[in-house]
Amino acid sequence: MQFTAAQISLIIQGKIEGNADAAVDSFGKIEEAKPNQLTFLANPKYEEFLYSTNASIVILNEAYELKEPIAPTLIRVPDAYSAFALLLSKYQEMAAQQMKGIQQPSYIPDSAEIGENVFIGAFAYFGQNVKVGANTKIYPNAFIGDNVQIGDNCVIHPGVKIYYGCILRNNVVIHAGTVIGSDGFGFAPQADGSYKKVPQIGNVVVEDGVEIGANTTIDRATIGSTIIKAGAKLDNLIQIAHNVEVGNNTVIAAQAGVSGSTKIGDNVMIGGQAGLVGHIQIADGSRINAQSGVSKSLKTPGTTVTGSPAHDYSSVLRSQAVFRNLPNLEKRIYELEELVKQLMAEKV
Amino acid sequence: MQFTAAQISLIIQGKIEGNADAAVDSFGKIEEAKPNQLTFLANPKYEEFLYSTNASIVILNEAYELKEPIAPTLIRVPDAYSAFALLLSKYQEMAAQQMKGIQQPSYIPDSAEIGENVFIGAFAYFGQNVKVGANTKIYPNAFIGDNVQIGDNCVIHPGVKIYYGCILRNNVVIHAGTVIGSDGFGFAPQADGSYKKVPQIGNVVVEDGVEIGANTTIDRATIGSTIIKAGAKLDNLIQIAHNVEVGNNTVIAAQAGVSGSTKIGDNVMIGGQAGLVGHIQIADGSRINAQSGVSKSLKTPGTTVTGSPAHDYSSVLRSQAVFRNLPNLEKRIYELEELVKQLMAEKV
Amino acid sequence: MQFTAAQISLIIQGKIEGNADAAVDSFGKIEEAKPNQLTFLANPKYEEFLYSTNASIVILNEAYELKEPIAPTLIRVPDAYSAFALLLSKYQEMAAQQMKGIQQPSYIPDSAEIGENVFIGAFAYFGQNVKVGANTKIYPNAFIGDNVQIGDNCVIHPGVKIYYGCILRNNVVIHAGTVIGSDGFGFAPQADGSYKKVPQIGNVVVEDGVEIGANTTIDRATIGSTIIKAGAKLDNLIQIAHNVEVGNNTVIAAQAGVSGSTKIGDNVMIGGQAGLVGHIQIADGSRINAQSGVSKSLKTPGTTVTGSPAHDYSSVLRSQAVFRNLPNLEKRIYELEELVKQLMAEKV
Repeated sequence: MQFTAAQISLIIQGKIEGNADAAVDSFGKIEEAKPNQLTFLANPKYEEFLYSTNASIVILNEAYELKEPIAPTLIRVPDAYSAFALLLSKYQEMAAQQMKGIQQPSYIPDSAEIGENVFIGAFAYFGQNVKVGANTKIYPNAFIGDNVQIGDNCVIHPGVKIYYGCILRNNVVIHAGTVIGSDGFGFAPQADGSYKKVPQIGNVVVEDGVEIGANTTIDRATIGSTIIKAGAKLDNLIQIAHNVEVGNNTVIAAQAGVSGSTKIGDNVMIGGQAGLVGHIQIADGSRINAQSGVSKSLKTPGTTVTGSPAHDYSSVLRSQAVFRNLPNLEKRIYELEELVKQLMAEKV
Repeated sequence: MQFTAAQISLIIQGKIEGNADAAVDSFGKIEEAKPNQLTFLANPKYEEFLYSTNASIVILNEAYELKEPIAPTLIRVPDAYSAFALLLSKYQEMAAQQMKGIQQPSYIPDSAEIGENVFIGAFAYFGQNVKVGANTKIYPNAFIGDNVQIGDNCVIHPGVKIYYGCILRNNVVIHAGTVIGSDGFGFAPQADGSYKKVPQIGNVVVEDGVEIGANTTIDRATIGSTIIKAGAKLDNLIQIAHNVEVGNNTVIAAQAGVSGSTKIGDNVMIGGQAGLVGHIQIADGSRINAQSGVSKSLKTPGTTVTGSPAHDYSSVLRSQAVFRNLPNLEKRIYELEELVKQLMAEKV
Repeated sequence: MQFTAAQISLIIQGKIEGNADAAVDSFGKIEEAKPNQLTFLANPKYEEFLYSTNASIVILNEAYELKEPIAPTLIRVPDAYSAFALLLSKYQEMAAQQMKGIQQPSYIPDSAEIGENVFIGAFAYFGQNVKVGANTKIYPNAFIGDNVQIGDNCVIHPGVKIYYGCILRNNVVIHAGTVIGSDGFGFAPQADGSYKKVPQIGNVVVEDGVEIGANTTIDRATIGSTIIKAGAKLDNLIQIAHNVEVGNNTVIAAQAGVSGSTKIGDNVMIGGQAGLVGHIQIADGSRINAQSGVSKSLKTPGTTVTGSPAHDYSSVLRSQAVFRNLPNLEKRIYELEELVKQLMAEKV
């Protein structure tokens, strides 16, 4: 698809300086953009590239004053970054709306209920009684188990596997390779040292507007539901164990792990590679720093913790500062001991 | 499938109180169950819900005395939780036995040897000379490489990839997205700073009764076998490197990683996100806590370690307690120095 | 395939002792090898097995003096290990060259440009305008998005997903289940506590000779490219966030994670489960030990860091030694306090 400066200006409500017929077919960074690409300047750090860029169109802040004439067509807006982001998001919407229909071969039993404008890619597999809402896109090689329900406007990327009975509400995005509803890790130790599987017959419920990254795993509940609440955002390679609840608008960075039955409140932020033990509660608005190991409930909303085991951020920071100085501290203790020994000896 | 109280009672050898014809078609937690669902009460904490539940049937301990009459049919057993778990496991067995036959399109060369009652889902791929034992279920989109052998009663969930030459014995369960037999990470440094691949031509052997979670990776041996011994249970997103051995009935929690050639004994427990360096031995019955970093062999059976680097659990716990107090310790040393300086000065 | 000692000797330029017609069809470790298998002895630790091995052919160092006559045919070379590795690598090349053609069903639009000697497995999916170079192998169930370019001599293992617009140069190997080009984790916080997705419209570029392990995730850039430079080697379950650059011949071990926009230099080594925050620079030749948490740029080439937060390796080692001794240190401080109290009291 090609767009002219005039067309773009209409979408982002900008003012054109230069050739309104200049046309672009893709996007580029200002320092790398080629002819027929669109770019923007928002960060003053990149100002110099404005005068050397090969882009055909540049989105620019109204307030910016040109230091010399430049070749590309300019589109002036109050905030170049926001305008650019808006444009990208419109562009992706348009591209997605063009995806429609069911590619062959795919495996879709008659019992499936499929809404309007749905796309289903080749080699996608549906179990029995699957429901898919309107405008949802299911990419190739996805597996959708028996009785799974997927709402409207969802995007299921290639190779996602959703086990039987799981529920995705509307506007959910799941990236490639992620597994929803695998068995929780439940095994009862036997007298002979072996383990017996505890059946995992709950499901996973993913609420409105949740986005989940690639190759993440979310286990089904032993009984009841593992729940990812509305607006939560999960990154790649995250482990969510059985019966966990992740609160509304909570954000979890890559490679973090949450053990069984832990309940995470709303608007919590969890850093990359952090780990949470099972059966604890995390209060609303908590912040858990990267690589932390949280072994106890966080009861006060808005607390920040760090370290493994995790404690109050500022106190850990002070301890870490002293930690780096430990060999020196030990030396000071030794010197004190020598002096005190001397004083004690002289006392006699 | 629908079951009456009479049918269920027969399976769990219980005693019915109320309508023996009450019927259920699914399971629910006592506080959430709907009509036509079965639930149970085991934990006294949930007692209040017994009197408000909408479930049609409740499994209840014999010893429990009702405080007021209730609507659902009761099935009395010595231990409600065990009875419920037994029921779930029978239910899942029944559901699995109904899966049979080979769905199309799948890709199965004539060289495949396939046992009785096997299920193979659509878009599953077999290389040459694959053997699959009786009653094994291979879900859609699975990849089974050349010369792979899979025993009886195994379950290979959707999108599992098993590279050429790997061996799974009987009663093995592999969850979705897991990769068995990818190349070990072996590269020989060259004089110019580049790396040359060391061919990885061993395989992976997964013994009887092993269960492996979702999106875990188990690399093939450089030469010989990476071995997961009988009864071991591995969670999601675990990394097992080339030539590792995991002992019988050893349990590894999510996101743990084991480096090359490390040998883990029997009945070991490894916590989530723990890491083990290569070429070490872990004695039988060791416990490695979550997020530990094990850099040396654990030679004494039954030892518990924690921390990174990992050391004896109770000693690390004591050090961690002092760590939290480090700023105060530093202050005490400073005060001592001031006092001793004063004493030394007065001495003169 | 079967090979005689004579044929093998030709490839590794060795000297035969014994029956030149002895034939083998596979490889084994010296202590486990069966008749018709080839093995080697390089490590003197395994010397005893030379005299009991069932292998039909053994590759042996020229310098080694036999202590008694043995049954297998010997092939003498200057360095048995290198000769064996060379042989394996030739063997795997031969096996790969036999894979050719496009299996059905696969989904390949007419817009695809496919080079000579390419293999494409069943259930592989191509979007529009995909380019694949000569001799590249794409295994079953792989997903190759719109406008993806893959060079010559690449191997794309089963179930790999490459999102639209990503570029793989020549001699790239990607192991099973890995995701290339999933959306970067970019969400702008809104006034009401919710998050709005920042469109991710860049791509991923994987340069010549890169090998990437299984179930790793590499996110596309927000704008521009996430780049894995020539010769880099990435293990399994690694997270590479948007706009990261990994330098030439840099090696990253399993389960490590790199946050957004971090630039890693050439010849860096990153240990397993290490984590790097976003927007930092890692100088050429840096070594980041396993489980480290790197929160600041490493500016001096060749530095080794460890710990979380990561600092200079040898200083952290000294602090860790004292850490283990902290309870004792606290006791010494207490004793000093008691003595000084006594001295102060007596002073009066």
